Amino acid sequence: MTYCLGMLLEEGLVLMADTRTNAGIDNFSTFRKLHLLADGPDRQIHAASAGSLSLSQSAIGLLQESEVENGQGHQISEAPTMFKAAQLVGEAVAKVGATIGTALAREHIDNSLELLVGGYVGDAPLRLYLVYTIGNFIECTSDVPFLQVGETKYGRPILDRALTYRTPLPEAVKIGFLSFDSTMESNLGVAHPIDVLVLPTDRTKPPVKRRIEEDDDYFREITRGWGKMLNEAVAKLPEPPWLASALERAD
Amino acid sequence: MTYCLGMLLEEGLVLMADTRTNAGIDNFSTFRKLHLLADGPDRQIHAASAGSLSLSQSAIGLLQESEVENGQGHQISEAPTMFKAAQLVGEAVAKVGATIGTALAREHIDNSLELLVGGYVGDAPLRLYLVYTIGNFIECTSDVPFLQVGETKYGRPILDRALTYRTPLPEAVKIGFLSFDSTMESNLGVAHPIDVLVLPTDRTKPPVKRRIEEDDDYFREITRGWGKMLNEAVAKLPEPPWLASALERAD
Repeated sequence: MTYCLGMLLEEGLVLMADTRTNAGIDNFSTFRKLHLLADGPDRQIHAASAGSLSLSQSAIGLLQESEVENGQGHQISEAPTMFKAAQLVGEAVAKVGATIGTALAREHIDNSLELLVGGYVGDAPLRLYLVYTIGNFIECTSDVPFLQVGETKYGRPILDRALTYRTPLPEAVKIGFLSFDSTMESNLGVAHPIDVLVLPTDRTKPPVKRRIEEDDDYFREITRGWGKMLNEAVAKLPEPPWLASALERAD
Repeated sequence: MTYCLGMLLEEGLVLMADTRTNAGIDNFSTFRKLHLLADGPDRQIHAASAGSLSLSQSAIGLLQESEVENGQGHQISEAPTMFKAAQLVGEAVAKVGATIGTALAREHIDNSLELLVGGYVGDAPLRLYLVYTIGNFIECTSDVPFLQVGETKYGRPILDRALTYRTPLPEAVKIGFLSFDSTMESNLGVAHPIDVLVLPTDRTKPPVKRRIEEDDDYFREITRGWGKMLNEAVAKLPEPPWLASALERAD
């Protein structure tokens, strides 16, 4: 399993991915799922992947190889827009799906692969896409300023309640960590380290990359504080007015 | 979709079920999913169902018919223990699965059916079971004092963080409602009214039944208060110490 989260906000773009992989429940390992696709003076393009590890590594490999082979404009480093970059990622995903994916399906092995692709090209705004298993994709908009792939449900309520397009970057990273914490609490297939990338809208500010290990002091502090405050919040809410009286009434 | 939650606590048993059913996304309706299986001086047995509505209604129907047909001890009203009652429910589930379930599978229509079965027989303690689609079942224990069926993931983080075996009944009902609210926020296939049943461990206290409509004042008050306190809690947590300084450093 995997959990990847992308947030597209007024102040910038955030990508987060865990690193836990497993083939069955008795074969766990750690692999980076946050990949750099293009890094140049005019662009920063990153991807976070969920699904079959052999498929995602092959798709990323194809994209990196095509940089070497010079596919005449079919390179992410030369894509004129983020839309074109998402298309190229979609084509790579479709290509590995048609070969390895089909073979996996024959053996009834999971052949899903979903990627979050985010970044900028030139002076155009930051963009965030979700590329699906068959290579089609959707783009994130400000109404719901996040996209998720992998184990998405446990970590979603906090995003629905706390994240908006105008949430400042440091607050968004905090909310993202709480979303990861909820997910890791309920699914052992999602685990530290968590890779984080922050691309500020203001291009004079540098991209920030960080790996959060299991013993990270800050992560521990906010998840412990969060658990404590949640319990205090529950205690502060009123009790069902109809329950106490009903329970007191002996039959 | 459906969400049903059962909590087995020191002070009693709580069952909650939403009432939304849908056949495709263009055919929504309201059906009761919290069923009374036995109500007598020596017993209270209830079930909450998730899955194919035709399967769950057929299984409940079979159990009620066998009451009429006198199956020689194969009746829930005469089951000597809750374990036996869970077995009878499992047999009914297996029976409808073998007939209707198999026919649904041939048409590639969802044929899952899961039930929470809870209550007491005689002087024995309250019990809570989860009966799976093929009729096997597990029992809830005090380590994780809840079981869920249906759309289980969105509503689980609050349970993991706030609910223990020693949580008082009114607090547990409150936490259950917050779990439903998180689920309804993210999945339109789960919706009001919510049916609630509370069976106190103290048998001198009566069972409490309640239906929570969409405009229920108490439900609205706690979900609004909860959203507000969550946002306050997020704001109170410290920001990532490494982010602000990294963002300030112009490249």
